[in-house]
Amino acid sequence: MTGQLGDAWRHCIGAGRFELALRRDYQDSLALLQREIGFRHIRQHGLFSAGAGVHRPYEYGGERRVLHSFTYVDQVVDMYLELGIRPFVELGFMPPGLASGDQTVFWWRGNVTPPSDRAEWAALVRGTVAHLVDRYGLDEVRGWPIEVWNEPDLKDFWQHADQDAYHDLYEVTAHAVKDVDAGLQVGGPALSPGADDGWLPRFAEFVAARGVPIDFVSRHAYTSGPAQHVPFGVHQTLAPAATLLEQFAAPGRQLAGTALEGLPVHITEFNSSYRPDNPVHDTAFHAAYLAPVVAAAGDLVDSFSYWTFCDVFEEAGVPAALFHGGFGLLTHRQIRKPTFHLYAFLARMGGEVLARADDHLVTRDGTGRVTVLAWAAGQGSDGHRVRLSVPVGSPAVTAYVARSSVSEEAGNAWAAWREMGSPRSPGARQLDALREASEPARRHWSAPVVDGRAELDLSLAVHEVTLVEVTAVRDETPPWWDDTRLLGGPA
Amino acid sequence: MTGQLGDAWRHCIGAGRFELALRRDYQDSLALLQREIGFRHIRQHGLFSAGAGVHRPYEYGGERRVLHSFTYVDQVVDMYLELGIRPFVELGFMPPGLASGDQTVFWWRGNVTPPSDRAEWAALVRGTVAHLVDRYGLDEVRGWPIEVWNEPDLKDFWQHADQDAYHDLYEVTAHAVKDVDAGLQVGGPALSPGADDGWLPRFAEFVAARGVPIDFVSRHAYTSGPAQHVPFGVHQTLAPAATLLEQFAAPGRQLAGTALEGLPVHITEFNSSYRPDNPVHDTAFHAAYLAPVVAAAGDLVDSFSYWTFCDVFEEAGVPAALFHGGFGLLTHRQIRKPTFHLYAFLARMGGEVLARADDHLVTRDGTGRVTVLAWAAGQGSDGHRVRLSVPVGSPAVTAYVARSSVSEEAGNAWAAWREMGSPRSPGARQLDALREASEPARRHWSAPVVDGRAELDLSLAVHEVTLVEVTAVRDETPPWWDDTRLLGGPA
Amino acid sequence: MTGQLGDAWRHCIGAGRFELALRRDYQDSLALLQREIGFRHIRQHGLFSAGAGVHRPYEYGGERRVLHSFTYVDQVVDMYLELGIRPFVELGFMPPGLASGDQTVFWWRGNVTPPSDRAEWAALVRGTVAHLVDRYGLDEVRGWPIEVWNEPDLKDFWQHADQDAYHDLYEVTAHAVKDVDAGLQVGGPALSPGADDGWLPRFAEFVAARGVPIDFVSRHAYTSGPAQHVPFGVHQTLAPAATLLEQFAAPGRQLAGTALEGLPVHITEFNSSYRPDNPVHDTAFHAAYLAPVVAAAGDLVDSFSYWTFCDVFEEAGVPAALFHGGFGLLTHRQIRKPTFHLYAFLARMGGEVLARADDHLVTRDGTGRVTVLAWAAGQGSDGHRVRLSVPVGSPAVTAYVARSSVSEEAGNAWAAWREMGSPRSPGARQLDALREASEPARRHWSAPVVDGRAELDLSLAVHEVTLVEVTAVRDETPPWWDDTRLLGGPA
Amino acid sequence: MTGQLGDAWRHCIGAGRFELALRRDYQDSLALLQREIGFRHIRQHGLFSAGAGVHRPYEYGGERRVLHSFTYVDQVVDMYLELGIRPFVELGFMPPGLASGDQTVFWWRGNVTPPSDRAEWAALVRGTVAHLVDRYGLDEVRGWPIEVWNEPDLKDFWQHADQDAYHDLYEVTAHAVKDVDAGLQVGGPALSPGADDGWLPRFAEFVAARGVPIDFVSRHAYTSGPAQHVPFGVHQTLAPAATLLEQFAAPGRQLAGTALEGLPVHITEFNSSYRPDNPVHDTAFHAAYLAPVVAAAGDLVDSFSYWTFCDVFEEAGVPAALFHGGFGLLTHRQIRKPTFHLYAFLARMGGEVLARADDHLVTRDGTGRVTVLAWAAGQGSDGHRVRLSVPVGSPAVTAYVARSSVSEEAGNAWAAWREMGSPRSPGARQLDALREASEPARRHWSAPVVDGRAELDLSLAVHEVTLVEVTAVRDETPPWWDDTRLLGGPA
Repeated sequence: MTGQLGDAWRHCIGAGRFELALRRDYQDSLALLQREIGFRHIRQHGLFSAGAGVHRPYEYGGERRVLHSFTYVDQVVDMYLELGIRPFVELGFMPPGLASGDQTVFWWRGNVTPPSDRAEWAALVRGTVAHLVDRYGLDEVRGWPIEVWNEPDLKDFWQHADQDAYHDLYEVTAHAVKDVDAGLQVGGPALSPGADDGWLPRFAEFVAARGVPIDFVSRHAYTSGPAQHVPFGVHQTLAPAATLLEQFAAPGRQLAGTALEGLPVHITEFNSSYRPDNPVHDTAFHAAYLAPVVAAAGDLVDSFSYWTFCDVFEEAGVPAALFHGGFGLLTHRQIRKPTFHLYAFLARMGGEVLARADDHLVTRDGTGRVTVLAWAAGQGSDGHRVRLSVPVGSPAVTAYVARSSVSEEAGNAWAAWREMGSPRSPGARQLDALREASEPARRHWSAPVVDGRAELDLSLAVHEVTLVEVTAVRDETPPWWDDTRLLGGPA
Repeated sequence: MTGQLGDAWRHCIGAGRFELALRRDYQDSLALLQREIGFRHIRQHGLFSAGAGVHRPYEYGGERRVLHSFTYVDQVVDMYLELGIRPFVELGFMPPGLASGDQTVFWWRGNVTPPSDRAEWAALVRGTVAHLVDRYGLDEVRGWPIEVWNEPDLKDFWQHADQDAYHDLYEVTAHAVKDVDAGLQVGGPALSPGADDGWLPRFAEFVAARGVPIDFVSRHAYTSGPAQHVPFGVHQTLAPAATLLEQFAAPGRQLAGTALEGLPVHITEFNSSYRPDNPVHDTAFHAAYLAPVVAAAGDLVDSFSYWTFCDVFEEAGVPAALFHGGFGLLTHRQIRKPTFHLYAFLARMGGEVLARADDHLVTRDGTGRVTVLAWAAGQGSDGHRVRLSVPVGSPAVTAYVARSSVSEEAGNAWAAWREMGSPRSPGARQLDALREASEPARRHWSAPVVDGRAELDLSLAVHEVTLVEVTAVRDETPPWWDDTRLLGGPA
Repeated sequence: MTGQLGDAWRHCIGAGRFELALRRDYQDSLALLQREIGFRHIRQHGLFSAGAGVHRPYEYGGERRVLHSFTYVDQVVDMYLELGIRPFVELGFMPPGLASGDQTVFWWRGNVTPPSDRAEWAALVRGTVAHLVDRYGLDEVRGWPIEVWNEPDLKDFWQHADQDAYHDLYEVTAHAVKDVDAGLQVGGPALSPGADDGWLPRFAEFVAARGVPIDFVSRHAYTSGPAQHVPFGVHQTLAPAATLLEQFAAPGRQLAGTALEGLPVHITEFNSSYRPDNPVHDTAFHAAYLAPVVAAAGDLVDSFSYWTFCDVFEEAGVPAALFHGGFGLLTHRQIRKPTFHLYAFLARMGGEVLARADDHLVTRDGTGRVTVLAWAAGQGSDGHRVRLSVPVGSPAVTAYVARSSVSEEAGNAWAAWREMGSPRSPGARQLDALREASEPARRHWSAPVVDGRAELDLSLAVHEVTLVEVTAVRDETPPWWDDTRLLGGPA
Repeated sequence: MTGQLGDAWRHCIGAGRFELALRRDYQDSLALLQREIGFRHIRQHGLFSAGAGVHRPYEYGGERRVLHSFTYVDQVVDMYLELGIRPFVELGFMPPGLASGDQTVFWWRGNVTPPSDRAEWAALVRGTVAHLVDRYGLDEVRGWPIEVWNEPDLKDFWQHADQDAYHDLYEVTAHAVKDVDAGLQVGGPALSPGADDGWLPRFAEFVAARGVPIDFVSRHAYTSGPAQHVPFGVHQTLAPAATLLEQFAAPGRQLAGTALEGLPVHITEFNSSYRPDNPVHDTAFHAAYLAPVVAAAGDLVDSFSYWTFCDVFEEAGVPAALFHGGFGLLTHRQIRKPTFHLYAFLARMGGEVLARADDHLVTRDGTGRVTVLAWAAGQGSDGHRVRLSVPVGSPAVTAYVARSSVSEEAGNAWAAWREMGSPRSPGARQLDALREASEPARRHWSAPVVDGRAELDLSLAVHEVTLVEVTAVRDETPPWWDDTRLLGGPA
């Protein structure tokens, strides 16, 4: 029930395809994210796709050669490090000049076929990793997990979802990474939630049998049902949020007894819906739905990476409206969604867990400040009440209590946008209004401290997620201060 | 009842002594002020005092000479123009090297005696004004009112409060200004609220009799009673806010029938208390107290200049706590006080007045957006209700309504600071919490539009000042949108 | 010989395809460009191509519909206006969902076939222009030239280079623009330098015969011969720079006597080479080559738009090295090329032309400051000398002269990059060194003024372009100043 | 001759009185300083003077009390830490409310008399240090040297220059500091260069005899002769720069054999002239004069603190012109003087000393980059030549050499300002020109590497200080590159 909160929740966050990181909106959003939350790694598709321009075959002296070009890669990674975040490298998809077929995924056409030339692929991996080591230093790059491909168990992401072909890709890739330095971390197989239970054990058996290097295991987790399409969007049913925790726990269960038992497990993507055009992502419901997951999942895995940090994302084409159901914690132009605030609240919590429950989490930081994260998750609920006594832990007579909330009413720019008539491309004044509407509601009060404790009685509105910060007061009010004399009068 | 709101309210704002404008806190505060409100002119004491370093006598070739030095003046005025604000020049106090006595005012010792040498004073004025014209251009400087001295009717500000001596000073100064260019605007006499009713007529008679140039008349207005001292502060009774309006109207009344009738009237300072250490300035009460004044005074005068925009101000010494009763709309480090928000609310209103009442003002801007400013001014009141019907003026079916409020509870950093134990010098985390507490409470909703009008029923808490913005909705919600399908389900 | 310099040179500048404007590097470069030079309009391809996401067909209620989406368009144009630049709108290429064929141009695959549905195209044009008017105001958008397509005389840019098909496109498009507002400016045909001499008269005849609206005429100008390919680049011969002036003059000559005689002429693209991978663009030679063109062309046309302002440009794929022969005045990451400085020098010149010659231009601004732009254009030249007498025009005894130069040695980051070993992706320290190397060499001196004139004797190095600024000195040196006493000694 | 360069040179820098740190110009200058050079500590007078507002006596309950107020102290120190610099705390001067006399120093009137109440002074010291520890943490504050008073051997700085009185002040102060925490560092006596040789031994004897805590010893160093006054300035002869090194070495010599032998020695102020109005500070001569000192002094002392980093400084009154002979490395408005560049050059050097000579210093950093600092120090010299062979240390065939210089001609804004007519308060365009003139001249070339070494043959102009950076080239030039084909032609 108690212990350390850990920071698996902030270990990684997802992002749109590689070259989208060159956009200003993406970078402004990432800067805001790092300032108000602070993630450690960032993961995205497309490092080897056409848009990043890495794999560059050419003719010279009458023969085919390949240049590895890092013009954009370096611009992006330089920027990441400036913003205090590091790559969680995903090796994929297949460069057009190295592809064995022409199957693509997404509007932006990532090629998902195996390499036409195993050696050229290995050279690409080695060349890329060696370049990163050369530019950023070995100590730095050893801290970046390197993951092989994405969801090879799905036909959309790996031609025929051919597990043997993936094993082969994994093997050549893992060796190529370790050729650069044995201390680099390589892993996979980045399974989709739909992978059958045997996939991972078969993978374990393969790498064990062949002595292939592996430093971590990865998979994804989503809870949505099939897409019900409307123009420019979908609706989907969602399984209970707790099924996310089950999915997080699955690799550990599946690998028990295999050679990979005990390896770090990274959930390299998770969300409710796996669609970038499901409006549920924009709602207060969503923050409340995920609150118990992010509050609890650190006990199960080494990381769980929200997919994605912002709506600069084009897998289903260019978004046709400001709010369009994108994955982002932030819309285009940095409007913060309720789920952004869920993470921002977590970022203000302490490391020591004082209490956990179905509807709240209590922590304390090194200064004695106590924080409570509470949520009213049930859809359609008409509110919720949480009563707590928290230690203030000092000779304080009062505590300063500050509460921030998002709900259907508060900190909910999507609701404001709906009231504005769903303007697809809001003007400057509307954007200002949306920014105001995206601010959590803030309250503060003075709470008496009795026997070193303060009492909290919190009413939560529908889909509210609230953060309460309790700080012992050191009273500097001078002895002559008298509220009743504000407008004059005798002492 | 209706008409134009005008912008007398934003024509000018007061500030601490001249060289304080070199401080970063002052400049950061001014930048924030201009971004969120936007004043046209800024007025402050001390242009000729020691700290600004303008009047610089020296010996050369065996004789006394005077250099006019503008090192700091130019730094300050350059910065003002960059921030989109212009000087309202106050000529004073007396440079130490030109003073006829050693009486000073304030902790920073502004000399308040007449010049020892009338010609050297005239040269100082001419040299300064000519320098400004040379650096900034005649067109620009013609727009800057130039005021002669400050509150010469008070012994603290002008030795013996000698009216004849002031007349003499005014005469030599006004001519010196006009020597540079006849189109420059000069005025005075910057009377205190305590000036007797005959002061201004006598001044009018003097300038008329002597043909002295005058382009505007100025005076000040405050409502506080005598200071009841406590360490590092005072308490004072306040007269009703309406007495400010009476003071604003006084010059017009007093000058009726004189040669100065009809001249522009500038209230170059106003506030409740004239003390920079009265905590009333920091309160929500203060915003509600002044709301009816700022909403109405534009009909009476050409400007009324709030004294002052920020707490970077040292007339009573270095402030000994973050909240110390300073005049500022902003504290040190840019915490916005409730009265800041009163001005920020005004800055969002339209130019066309639709309605005025004791407790509210309704305007419309060129885009059709309607704004309501309402207030619950009475001290000790237990809230207040304002019901209105406002024109939305379009084929809209709904309106987007956004409401921002400050009150005892909301947008009131001073209240939060009290709850924190009145920390004299808050730490980084406390400053963040105060910034959050200083944000107005924001709400938004969709209001039905019937017969082109929307109904507002506003409950105001104690000392609340609220801004309501009503915008016609152009509905872009697509026909397929169905709220009930958010979590899936049939169309 | 004398007259006004005009600002045709800064009327417009070219840029990479539309959605590249979302990139931070592009925006940082544009901000730098506007700060140091300041252009009025910006023109780019791809407004209607897939990446901008404007034309969005969908199915609803069993039928095909089209949404016009401006998510990215608004982000880009909002940013342009913030940076003080405005669109020179190019209508093209064909949206995939409206194309009649699948021919594309460039690595990024702009579709160059006629619309499959004339009415749907007209609706797209009308919808787009009406949206811009709605968002930015009619007064604003009336100032934006709107050009129909790009280089329809080339098979690569317009299927079959079919002139009749272009006439048809122009007609429907021009009417669609004017449907929104008759005061909007529409024009074409944006001919390539290779268009035969009859193209423009035939176009004139067509629009005259059919009464099609036209407000301006446009064409392009380049001087390079055929591409000689090497990997990731080309080499080309260049015709003399004066042929650019001939090309600029051509439309006026060709339209003489037609109905379009006297219309404004815009050169909507010009450069030496038309290839984005020709290293000549990066050189000091290039600045000297173009100097006489930009100094003289304002007399011939209403604008001539350098193609392009920065290397964020992908027509030939992702650049594989920092210096890669891109069109840009700026490389990725804002290294200024010599030709950037040519424009920055022009931006510091005055409006009044005092003298013109083959190797220099002399102007004066409203403050009396005289500027000389001089150049040593010949390739292989071993320097050049320019002697001038310029009016200082005041009682000054001396003038302050400041000289800035770029040449093979100075202000030439490309030369430094070559010396560094042509690092494809320079590290942070190398980028700093390149920034330093990109600074023009600066010198300054005091020149005596005799009879109101100062003499200049300028030696120019190979391929040097130099700006000399001459300002009359108002001497404030005090009478007691004595250089010889710097280290003490008698007066 | 070789060894480590160390960083005594960057350990500390001086600054104007405490509350000047609140100015924007000061803060902008400090930010620039830290960005381009990077000092560790900053030292200034006036912490306890009136302007900082720390010592605040008041009456309450019928008796005198004292409040310690840190409103400004916290603003300043917070800012320092944000900019990556830390206080070198100087305890002084005497608060007006605690002074035993009214003798003051400087235009800003720092009181230099002993405390009227020893216990109240001790409480002030304890309260201030304890506050800093409370706000910034003990680990942090233990790293801040705390120095007792300033130049007590001079009558201007300490009433009667009474050594016994200083000993008493030191004793009470050192104990008060250690009362807060024994790990804090306290020291003195901050002697002037004029202190007689017995001062320090007497001080040593006193602290040893009384067991007074002491962690470091401090004194000052200047080389100027008596002031020869002109209006708003002085001229002074200067002793050879080497006398600075003698002064630095003096404390070590004087303390040999005393109880304080071996304590760290901090030169807490040094410069040529001790006057803030001597134009020598603004010159290129000055950089060349000090170059051998800053290159060598790290072997003699633990720090030597240039007095001061910027011209925001008012000991002799408000500066009457932009260049006025101030101590600053930077003028008002951040024009960099030649001596700024001397420090900026040092900041780019490596830690390993390869060679030292009278006219140069050669270092190497961890990446193998070699840097040469060379100078032509003699006044009136007509230039100087330095020939060197430096190791490039890699298989490189060429090295990239970049050279930056300041001299009478280059990087010398003062010279430009003189040519402009010494404008006391330059306008915007003049400030831009001065900024350009303040840039060092930059050159770069490719040097052949033979036997792992490159040859440098450096001609130095009068008073030139030059930095040469030599970097091994890793050549990425592609095999197909051919300079002769730039304008086309056969391979």
